[in-house]
Amino acid sequence: MCELLGMSANTPTDICFSFSGLMERGGRTGPHRDGWGIVFYEGRGARAFHDPNPSAQSPLANWVKDYPIKSQIVISHIRQANVGATSLENTHPFQRELWGRSFSFAHNGQVPDVKKKPLQFYLPIGDTDSEHAFCWILDQLRKRFPTRPDSPQQWLPLVASVSRQLAELGVFNMLLSDGEVLLSFCSTKLCWLTRQAPFNHASLKDTELTVNFAKETTDQDKVTIIATEPLTADESWQAYSSGEFRAFLHGTSIFESSADEPQR
Amino acid sequence: MCELLGMSANTPTDICFSFSGLMERGGRTGPHRDGWGIVFYEGRGARAFHDPNPSAQSPLANWVKDYPIKSQIVISHIRQANVGATSLENTHPFQRELWGRSFSFAHNGQVPDVKKKPLQFYLPIGDTDSEHAFCWILDQLRKRFPTRPDSPQQWLPLVASVSRQLAELGVFNMLLSDGEVLLSFCSTKLCWLTRQAPFNHASLKDTELTVNFAKETTDQDKVTIIATEPLTADESWQAYSSGEFRAFLHGTSIFESSADEPQR
Repeated sequence: MCELLGMSANTPTDICFSFSGLMERGGRTGPHRDGWGIVFYEGRGARAFHDPNPSAQSPLANWVKDYPIKSQIVISHIRQANVGATSLENTHPFQRELWGRSFSFAHNGQVPDVKKKPLQFYLPIGDTDSEHAFCWILDQLRKRFPTRPDSPQQWLPLVASVSRQLAELGVFNMLLSDGEVLLSFCSTKLCWLTRQAPFNHASLKDTELTVNFAKETTDQDKVTIIATEPLTADESWQAYSSGEFRAFLHGTSIFESSADEPQR
Repeated sequence: MCELLGMSANTPTDICFSFSGLMERGGRTGPHRDGWGIVFYEGRGARAFHDPNPSAQSPLANWVKDYPIKSQIVISHIRQANVGATSLENTHPFQRELWGRSFSFAHNGQVPDVKKKPLQFYLPIGDTDSEHAFCWILDQLRKRFPTRPDSPQQWLPLVASVSRQLAELGVFNMLLSDGEVLLSFCSTKLCWLTRQAPFNHASLKDTELTVNFAKETTDQDKVTIIATEPLTADESWQAYSSGEFRAFLHGTSIFESSADEPQR
């Protein structure tokens, strides 16, 4: 298994605190030794860092941890390899362009039979089932919407629907973004919380680090964090249910659907 | 104008020395203050760093300069903005997937009318003429070769031909790679050199740094560097002629064509 970390915020925010916790799980407090990656969106651009080495020992991870890159959307992933060798091309998040936007995707789980699904526009560069699943999702979006819809509300239901199809093939927890919205789907394990005023202290579970968000933020700030497991000990994380899809814009949940709702 | 730097080597090689020289030109010895980027290939994977800040003052550039990432193909670019704002999405090298390979592209010059060329499969994320040109080149490759040809020799002449068409629109010096071959085209200014045994000392022109390659290499190493302007004072750089196209595999020039040859 792997671990996911996502952020959606209404103001450029650094993720150093949460990233510090996640990186500890890459070989120190967790077994995810097979690489890590992170994508920071800045406007329509995306800044990605990938390293097939364990994050807990990675000089690059240390650099990213200490350097406050401010972003409104972040997707990060630490990997424990199941399918595919430990190599740079198999390191999440994966990225592709659709509709003139940079899409990023990270996956936790295994959906080996996804490789039987034929691909049309997008091909994997590495050999993971995860990248194949990402290419297949983008293929479905591109076929249904050859040009970019006016509003994310138009294409979000399709991602919810194809995520549910993929979850039938195995375990499929994922984060996806086009740089505007942050999409999330839970097959087995994912949780989230929104930090907003009044802000409090928070302490990481994986390393001795406490932050007083009241000193770091303004009253208008709204920051949602999504993670495989709660990263802090003293905040109220909400668990996703199995089959729950949720999309965030500027830190606010703007679309949700669950497994027992009729497909839209 | 901008400056380009490329490397093709027969063994994983760090580019710290040449990159150090280039980065000085990003706001210290040169006027290229509008961002920089670099892509390192490792197998089929590509590790990219982009920063819209001047390279000479960039903490990320310092990190990359000091951390020996070993690669067989590198493409780097420092930017002085002409078309498009100074932003992450306008920072070269640009990347797209074609044939299940990660393609990277960096451009020096201006070809504003390229934006009149319609695009089919690939769309720009930012608003530079350079990224539009890259998308158009990949469109031509994809239309002519829907699947990956067995040998680069099959598709290299098409890139030479479309590069010449783009050079008719203005100034078009470029570097392009699929992670296997490094392609280069010179419209106005580009030079290259190959370092191989017997190795000697080399001194950067832009900062006080000398390296003794004899101590850093083996007799089998072959490393070709391509740059807008010579980076060292004591090596024999060969200037490209206008309209010259050249492709390198493992540091060796495997394909060349010049403006006065009949189109193949």
